[in-house]
Parts: sequence; structure tokens; C-alpha cells
Amino acid sequence: MSDRRVTLWSVPGIPLIQAGDDLAELIVDAVQRAGEHLHTNDVLVISSKIVSKSEGRMVDLQTVAPSEEAQALAEKTGKDPRIVELVLRESSSVSRVAPNVLVTTHRLGFTSANSGIDQSNIEHGDTHALLLPVDPDRSAAALRDRIESLTGALCGVVISDSHGRPFRVGNIGVAIGAAGVTTVLDLRGSEDLYGRTLRVTVSGYGDLLASAAHLICGEGADGFPVVLVRGIPSVGPYGTAADLNRQPQHDLYR
Amino acid sequence: MSDRRVTLWSVPGIPLIQAGDDLAELIVDAVQRAGEHLHTNDVLVISSKIVSKSEGRMVDLQTVAPSEEAQALAEKTGKDPRIVELVLRESSSVSRVAPNVLVTTHRLGFTSANSGIDQSNIEHGDTHALLLPVDPDRSAAALRDRIESLTGALCGVVISDSHGRPFRVGNIGVAIGAAGVTTVLDLRGSEDLYGRTLRVTVSGYGDLLASAAHLICGEGADGFPVVLVRGIPSVGPYGTAADLNRQPQHDLYR
Repeated sequence: MSDRRVTLWSVPGIPLIQAGDDLAELIVDAVQRAGEHLHTNDVLVISSKIVSKSEGRMVDLQTVAPSEEAQALAEKTGKDPRIVELVLRESSSVSRVAPNVLVTTHRLGFTSANSGIDQSNIEHGDTHALLLPVDPDRSAAALRDRIESLTGALCGVVISDSHGRPFRVGNIGVAIGAAGVTTVLDLRGSEDLYGRTLRVTVSGYGDLLASAAHLICGEGADGFPVVLVRGIPSVGPYGTAADLNRQPQHDLYR
Repeated sequence: MSDRRVTLWSVPGIPLIQAGDDLAELIVDAVQRAGEHLHTNDVLVISSKIVSKSEGRMVDLQTVAPSEEAQALAEKTGKDPRIVELVLRESSSVSRVAPNVLVTTHRLGFTSANSGIDQSNIEHGDTHALLLPVDPDRSAAALRDRIESLTGALCGVVISDSHGRPFRVGNIGVAIGAAGVTTVLDLRGSEDLYGRTLRVTVSGYGDLLASAAHLICGEGADGFPVVLVRGIPSVGPYGTAADLNRQPQHDLYR
């Protein structure tokens, strides 16, 4: 069995993204300007933020009228009632509420702070907020297709976000959109080193990809919104980021 | 600002580990046999399993007498009462119990299935079980020192395990021991692209390192227990894996 080598590369020169931009083209251009080329089976981990921007998911807070529920939650959390209103619109249920904390289950199925709504690294962050893409799995598939048509390379695409989690300090990278990559790697039934059957071995492979990229994507002004991952072994069938959402009936921590 | 390139390499030729083995020496030998050398600031992500084995943390289940509590939990979970006894001895509290599920808070402070006790990839896995290292942060520091004395290279060391998590499908890699690496990266107070202060940006950097390694460490018979990570940027002060344990009073999901 041969060893494996994977490289992670933070693609330089991605411009600030505006609504309507052809994101795939901007990424391909940046890769080429840096003297590289995309290969089939490369994986691009792309920050959800620039996907949202390209899809025009910015909301002017002046246009948001908070509901009574949003106003009540804003009082409990100390958050802007208009942000809370957007959080509620983007969510299917509220999971935890505390001062400065509003954890929801997003309409896309994952559980995270503020329904993924963010005001950092956006223009007019004091008056606007950025929602997650409408359907990040679809966005990932579209980016994969568009990159193939531009370059001939069939790349995996992961749209990543940063999630906090119970029990542990600090955010990790998670896949909220995916195409052309394994997202859930199920090794149950494989044998171990000594010939025993592995009993419970399911890996959140899409989240591993996002977390690896987060090692070098940075945050704030020195951020790289696109990381190219090269050399990922073929580990299993492709899936979507939705596959990574644990169904509530299988979750003991709702 | 320049782009970043990180490589992940699964070190081939790590032998099966026995109690008392000089793990640092075996890793250094394997790296050299593969034609590589360790450099200062390389990070070695090492499976907790081989650290446990080298520290003699294997338990013969015949020597374990289950308590009444263990027998009751074994009935609820369908698990071997002797394993449950070991899980309880290694834990400070039980978090969730269900058929086939026993989640505890480990004496080391993290919350995970079965107190990290495993019967896969060990000799005599039908009659023995492997406990986690007694003090993985100390083990990591000792490995770092020993590797420096063998090679002159001052490497980061992460001792990794695989944890499931609420809300999401599939395990990710987590750091349960660390030395010479940033484990919690606190960017609060930094500025974003547009000069606004980032409000909540704390990254579980040690877990990102472990998860990146899990992309290629494999499981079962084709596993690589050591992954060398080269090119990690200097992101912040070093910490321990214990820093990644969220204190119960700051956790809304106990």
C-alpha cells in the first residue's frame, strides 16, 4: 500500500466578489495567474461567503421588519432584531437561546449559530447582512460544471462554512455544499489490521476537506476564500453536503 | 500577502506498535526510510491508538469485574459489561445512553463515545480493549522532545482521535494531545476586509490539524497512523489539547 500526499494551496488573487460575478471564471483566472492549472480530481474548497456574494444574497437591514418573535429573541440575546428576523426566516427551528447566543437549525438542515448569517467581510457590514446561498449543493454542482466547461478539468467542489460545536472550543470548517467529492465515508464492514470487522466507522469526509482548507484560508483581512486540495485519494462514492446533516431522530442532543 | 502551501503526507512503514516501543524513534526511522527528513515546524499528527499501545494501555477484559452501574448500562446499551466498566472508569460523567450508544465526558475533559475505548486495530481485539493515553498532552510534549533529541528538528505533535458529534453525520479528527502547535486560534479583535472588527472568530486549530490528517490516514487495514503536515503558517501561540475542551458552564448542550 503506497503512501499518500495531499497539497493544500490558498489560491491568491481572488478579487472582491460582487453579485452576478461568474465565480467559476474568477477562480479559474486566479489559479492561472498564479501559474497553476486545475486538474481533474482537484478539490476546490470555496468559502460560502463568496458564493453568497456572487448570488446576491446581501440584505439591506433597512428593508427588514422584525416580527414580534424576533423582537423577543433580540431582547434575550442582545442581538439586532433585524438580524434575528433574518435568522428566523432562514431557519426551521430555534435550538438554543442565551445572551449573545442564537443557535438554530437552518432550513438547509444543519444546526449552527445565527443561521450562518454574517456581517463580517462584507461591504457595508454595519447596514447589511449576508445570507447563505439558497441551495449550496446546487451551487457546488453548478460551479463544478462551469469549471469543467472553462478548463476541461472535472474538479470536486466544497462550499465551506465555519461552525462552532457543542463540547469543544473553536470553530471548524464544515461542508454546506458539495459536488464531486465524498461527503460521508462509510467504512462499516471493512476489516481492521487484525482481520476483525470495523464496527462503527463513518467519517464526515466533506467536513474533513473543509477543515483542512481552514488551516490556511485565514479570516479577516488576510483571508483566502478558495483553497485548492490536490491528491485526495478516491475513497468512496460522491455525496452532497445535505448527507452530512444528522436526522433529528438520530440525534441525542437536540 | 503571499499564498500558502501545506502538504499532508501519510508516513509509510510504521510497524505494529508494542508496549514499551520508542514511538518517536520508530516514526523518525520510518520517515528516513521513506527518504524524507523532519524539519522544525513540521507537525506530526499521530493516532492516539499507537500512542496508547506504546504506553501499554491494553486491558485484558478477563481482569475487569463490572460494577452494578456498568451492568445496568450494559443492559441499556447492549454493550459488553466489561467494556462499559472500563468506559465508566475512564469518564467523569455519562452524557447520553441509548441502544448501542454510550457517550461520556472523559476524565480528560472531552465528550465522546465509549470514553475513546476501542477494540479495532488491536491484537486480540475480542478479548482486550485499548484505553486512551493517560495524559495525551504530556505524551505529545514527550514525543516532541524525543524527536528533537533524535533529529534536531523541533516538530509540532498532535495526538488525534476520531469523534462523532451532535447534529452532523460522521466522525472528524480531533486533537486529544498537542505540543508545539496552536490548538485554539483566537482572532477576536482582528479586522475584516472592510476594516470592521471581527466579533466571534475562534478556531479549533488543533482539531483542524487532526481532521486534515484524517483525509489520508485511512482506517482499518489500510491505515496510516502518522501523517506529516508541512508548511503550516505560524498562526498564534502554542496550546494544549485540553484548551479545546469547552467548560461545562459555557456549553449549552450538556
